[in-house]
Amino acid sequence: MPFKTVTSKLAAQLDRDLMGPEIGFTLEQLMELAGFSVAQAVLKEYPLAASTKTQVLVLAGPGNNGGDGLVCARHLKLFGFHPVVYYPKPNSKTPFFSRLVNQLKFFNIPVLNVDENWTQFLDSDSTVCVVDALFGFSFKPPVREPFGSILQQLHKVQDRLPIVSVDVPTGWDVDEGPVEPNSIIPKVLVSLTVPKPCASKIDSLETQHYVGGRFVPAEFAHKYKFEPFPYENADQVVKLSPN
Amino acid sequence: MPFKTVTSKLAAQLDRDLMGPEIGFTLEQLMELAGFSVAQAVLKEYPLAASTKTQVLVLAGPGNNGGDGLVCARHLKLFGFHPVVYYPKPNSKTPFFSRLVNQLKFFNIPVLNVDENWTQFLDSDSTVCVVDALFGFSFKPPVREPFGSILQQLHKVQDRLPIVSVDVPTGWDVDEGPVEPNSIIPKVLVSLTVPKPCASKIDSLETQHYVGGRFVPAEFAHKYKFEPFPYENADQVVKLSPN
Repeated sequence: MPFKTVTSKLAAQLDRDLMGPEIGFTLEQLMELAGFSVAQAVLKEYPLAASTKTQVLVLAGPGNNGGDGLVCARHLKLFGFHPVVYYPKPNSKTPFFSRLVNQLKFFNIPVLNVDENWTQFLDSDSTVCVVDALFGFSFKPPVREPFGSILQQLHKVQDRLPIVSVDVPTGWDVDEGPVEPNSIIPKVLVSLTVPKPCASKIDSLETQHYVGGRFVPAEFAHKYKFEPFPYENADQVVKLSPN
Repeated sequence: MPFKTVTSKLAAQLDRDLMGPEIGFTLEQLMELAGFSVAQAVLKEYPLAASTKTQVLVLAGPGNNGGDGLVCARHLKLFGFHPVVYYPKPNSKTPFFSRLVNQLKFFNIPVLNVDENWTQFLDSDSTVCVVDALFGFSFKPPVREPFGSILQQLHKVQDRLPIVSVDVPTGWDVDEGPVEPNSIIPKVLVSLTVPKPCASKIDSLETQHYVGGRFVPAEFAHKYKFEPFPYENADQVVKLSPN
């Protein structure tokens, strides 16, 4: 399915519009729906009935992409998975993020800090997949530590342990795609609201491509020159490719 | 399916727990998930493919039950329905409610004020159902105007136009059920988090009973002496009866 994309610059404008005074969405609302949609994509791609494995490693970055990951982990637990969250650089600017962490503790979901041994969960015998919620469309290179080391570890295991990237695979150029020689190649990409230009690089990579974040009307999509996606029923994600 | 219920008093305590400092849910998060679950119940009960009708009348009260209705209307629009909202007494205490109204305007969903003619939408030729999001578990009688007149109108049309009540049918005693002679009888009840005692009265009324608001872990349910509900996949509602 061909799809329109919006550049990182336009995506930032789109987010400001959605949360601006006229439309009035709150970060809490959009993050809840976005994180839920990522969890639903994981469930569709890795149905619990198809495997005895239930563990999911969620890597959460310091920004809004990380917040989507924190929400995703909670919904995964409600679906029957056993998520473990690695959150090396907690967001200290927005108080809501510490609430998201409290919610994870309420669900008995382990949240590892920077010094804890997260690589023990890179075990394909027990882990279904790794959710890459490190950085999103506002990421600018270079990758700083500890994220560079995390990406190196992911690159080593990605052939046996699938990576599910949220909106933009971490380390990719949002508009250009995988420009570094050691870029990670996710098995699943969940674009949020509308794919970013880098998503057009994945058709040749056998990556399963979903779009989630079902919260804009057709007229608004048209303003940003894309068509609404063909969501079915109450689904919060729709698979774009392969069909 | 037999189910445990929690009294209005315990339900209030449960909500305070969920939004307290320890667990840290925000009203925005819980309302988004609750409203979404009601919309999903409407879609399951009245699939769009089964009818040419798409209009849904949402009656939103001044409190949190009304907020769930405002969120529900937005998701109904995203699903393909054409909701119309009657919101006679806007919530003036919590600024988030005016944001919810802005979001409806963004979706081109009509929001009628107290003086507008909402009864024109009580037309079973074009309206699929009426969502009763007027009052929830914290309602205390008596019903004041304009809500008494609204309930009278609903009572008149309920045999030809199904009512979907959110958490508690408006006018019912939360713990005792339909105590007034002219109580409305919904065709669908969507209990939120856990049914309130009045829900045990509906088995004899041929009301379809769903539970939604999928946001508590098993341990928390046990604290309130109910069992987690058997949600499937990523569903945000589960049908309790009839099976």
